Amino acid sequence: MPYQQSIDHCLKEHGGYGVSRTRIDALLATLALAVSALANGKDKAAAPLLALPSMTSDLAAIEALAAQIRRRFKTVVIAGFGGSGLSGRTLLGLSPFPQPAFHFLENIDPETFDPLLERLDLPSTCFIVVSKSGSTAETLAQFYILHEQVAEKLGHQAAAERFTVITLPGDNPLRQSAEKHGMTLLDHAPDIGGRFSVLTPVGLLPAAIAGLDIRALRAGAQEVVDTLRGAPADCPPAIGAALQYAFIEAGTPMTVMLPYSERLACFAAWFRQCWAESLGKEGRGSTPLRAMGATDQHSQLQLYLDGPRDKLFTLITLSRAGSGQRIPVPEREDLAYLRGKTMGDVLAAEQRATLETLVHNRCPVRLFALDKLEEKQLGALLMHVMLEIILTAGLLGVNAFDQPAVEDGKRRAREYLIKNDL
Amino acid sequence: MPYQQSIDHCLKEHGGYGVSRTRIDALLATLALAVSALANGKDKAAAPLLALPSMTSDLAAIEALAAQIRRRFKTVVIAGFGGSGLSGRTLLGLSPFPQPAFHFLENIDPETFDPLLERLDLPSTCFIVVSKSGSTAETLAQFYILHEQVAEKLGHQAAAERFTVITLPGDNPLRQSAEKHGMTLLDHAPDIGGRFSVLTPVGLLPAAIAGLDIRALRAGAQEVVDTLRGAPADCPPAIGAALQYAFIEAGTPMTVMLPYSERLACFAAWFRQCWAESLGKEGRGSTPLRAMGATDQHSQLQLYLDGPRDKLFTLITLSRAGSGQRIPVPEREDLAYLRGKTMGDVLAAEQRATLETLVHNRCPVRLFALDKLEEKQLGALLMHVMLEIILTAGLLGVNAFDQPAVEDGKRRAREYLIKNDL
Repeated sequence: MPYQQSIDHCLKEHGGYGVSRTRIDALLATLALAVSALANGKDKAAAPLLALPSMTSDLAAIEALAAQIRRRFKTVVIAGFGGSGLSGRTLLGLSPFPQPAFHFLENIDPETFDPLLERLDLPSTCFIVVSKSGSTAETLAQFYILHEQVAEKLGHQAAAERFTVITLPGDNPLRQSAEKHGMTLLDHAPDIGGRFSVLTPVGLLPAAIAGLDIRALRAGAQEVVDTLRGAPADCPPAIGAALQYAFIEAGTPMTVMLPYSERLACFAAWFRQCWAESLGKEGRGSTPLRAMGATDQHSQLQLYLDGPRDKLFTLITLSRAGSGQRIPVPEREDLAYLRGKTMGDVLAAEQRATLETLVHNRCPVRLFALDKLEEKQLGALLMHVMLEIILTAGLLGVNAFDQPAVEDGKRRAREYLIKNDL
Repeated sequence: MPYQQSIDHCLKEHGGYGVSRTRIDALLATLALAVSALANGKDKAAAPLLALPSMTSDLAAIEALAAQIRRRFKTVVIAGFGGSGLSGRTLLGLSPFPQPAFHFLENIDPETFDPLLERLDLPSTCFIVVSKSGSTAETLAQFYILHEQVAEKLGHQAAAERFTVITLPGDNPLRQSAEKHGMTLLDHAPDIGGRFSVLTPVGLLPAAIAGLDIRALRAGAQEVVDTLRGAPADCPPAIGAALQYAFIEAGTPMTVMLPYSERLACFAAWFRQCWAESLGKEGRGSTPLRAMGATDQHSQLQLYLDGPRDKLFTLITLSRAGSGQRIPVPEREDLAYLRGKTMGDVLAAEQRATLETLVHNRCPVRLFALDKLEEKQLGALLMHVMLEIILTAGLLGVNAFDQPAVEDGKRRAREYLIKNDL
């Protein structure tokens, strides 16, 4: 497996404020039916997601479009809310300074949108606009403004060449404009929601533009899908779901994603989105927190160690010893601990110290250990989280694939706009 | 006042899952002594912070140094953890694309540090290194590596000219190197901790380099300090502390900072740091969450509205109607609500819709309403939060100014490094 999961530090038997092995085993037994339904395609809602990792038929087209964009443009602007933006950002975490450069537009704040637009060199910039429904108000606002500006400055033909749209087939405002102007159009997978779309073109097109190996992303995800065929006790996402649910039923309101890798910063944000929107319903679920090692040792660790015991931690560690540059420390006795060490050594020592200090303070810690972080590992982590969420939803008795509560706010916002009551 | 605070939507009397006005009034009475101790300088731990906003004697030197850096360099790299980095980042939120450009180094991940260092154009780059103690392991690791590279490539004299160090007076590793090499040195305020240092040179130097009005930042903060002289019921930070404490004692584990302004993204992260490290101790406190409108409508809002009722929300709204660009919508009936509207109109409608939907779903919402967001407003919000935290600490019976729990992890990390046990 591309990662090693360990839940030992979450179990009462190991001395933590944890849950019991007996309860985990009982939940794994409960999950057997759901796991086999996923494995044999009987879970119809999840089947399109599970079929993705072994699919290769769509990859050549994505790679070809990506190569064309990569050759022609220096900057890529991606407009999309929720999973439509976070999917690409999460994969791009692997490539801290990609060429071309990327900007993600995930808000409609004129005070940041307008200055960015002014700074863009339009001739060398292209735009990818993502909305599954094609009617997301914020994405449409961005799209119409961007398109008008590019068309005014470069002409209609050049504007059309600079836009790629990913949306559902059928009639919707975004698709209508894209078709009318002759923009490049990719179909959004009809049966995969935005927050589960990271392994579809929504995530893979930006990743391929940045030069990432999208086949390896899917292959890593497939390794996790394959574990659904065994017993739940050998299936990491099932173990994860049993663990998360056991802490929720024990009254733990928060679940913290704490990677010791800056390249997983967006992965933690993506987890936060996918978890919250899939599980936070009918008064159930728990609240996901994104954190970052070593940064949050100077921010959240005091609270984690000595505040209320109300969190389950997921720590992601990466082998680091010997990596990075040697630290040229001057002669001082109080710096002896840094002498001859590299930056990676310090991070290695700190991730281990954080794990052991959390455990020493009786905080429950689930561990994902990675030897390295490349496409295969990230693909596996993404699929693990999506399956863990789907299985946790089953245990909670909620639908992982809808988000009914936000409709009321959308209706209100439209009403205020129509009445000009702002 | 630069902002208007309202807690009406948090009160049981208004029909929410809130706390009672009676309880808030009782807590305000309890706070009277603490508020007057802050006002008359008898709270010795907080006095240096409260004296800052009216201080002007240090500003000319900060402005002069900033002008010199601004003239000479195209890129500013700031190395500092916790408040040492977040302070500058928070103020720079006001200026989305500053000249010079800024990079904040708040981690020691070789996989992001090394590529950034490679990309820097060293002749046009300067470095500001911030550590109150001068012995923060991560900051020292960054500093020694950065300095060696710059000295190797540009020579010792040019390297010294490119480093500004902010640290305590007295012997410490960072100061020793800065003095030895003849770098520019600013003293860190001895009696103000990193997370309360935003209105000291730690925050103000980066702000001034970006061209912000640092006098207005302090003036805005002073307006909030002035409210300590009246009754607690007329002092916004005291009302905020009473509110936060009332929700904590009622068993609410989370407090959410949700600004509808991308320029306050770092403010929310700064709040998260200052709140967690100041209050998360002895099993007490609550967990701060940073969020962002409208972005998180597509991420966290489903959970906020329909998940467990375990959060107090602080919504920051900004007058928006008519701002930003007009959205050129095509003729479609389902787009009528966007016709003739600007991007700011949409954000205005959405912030109002989110407020009303949260209230409708019986979620407690404290409101900060801003007419505009400039230096004065940000300075006021920052001082409000710091005073709210200090007063909440008093109610909780914890020391707002220490962070004892993180020492064990630091000790362990040093031990693993010394033993080379990585």
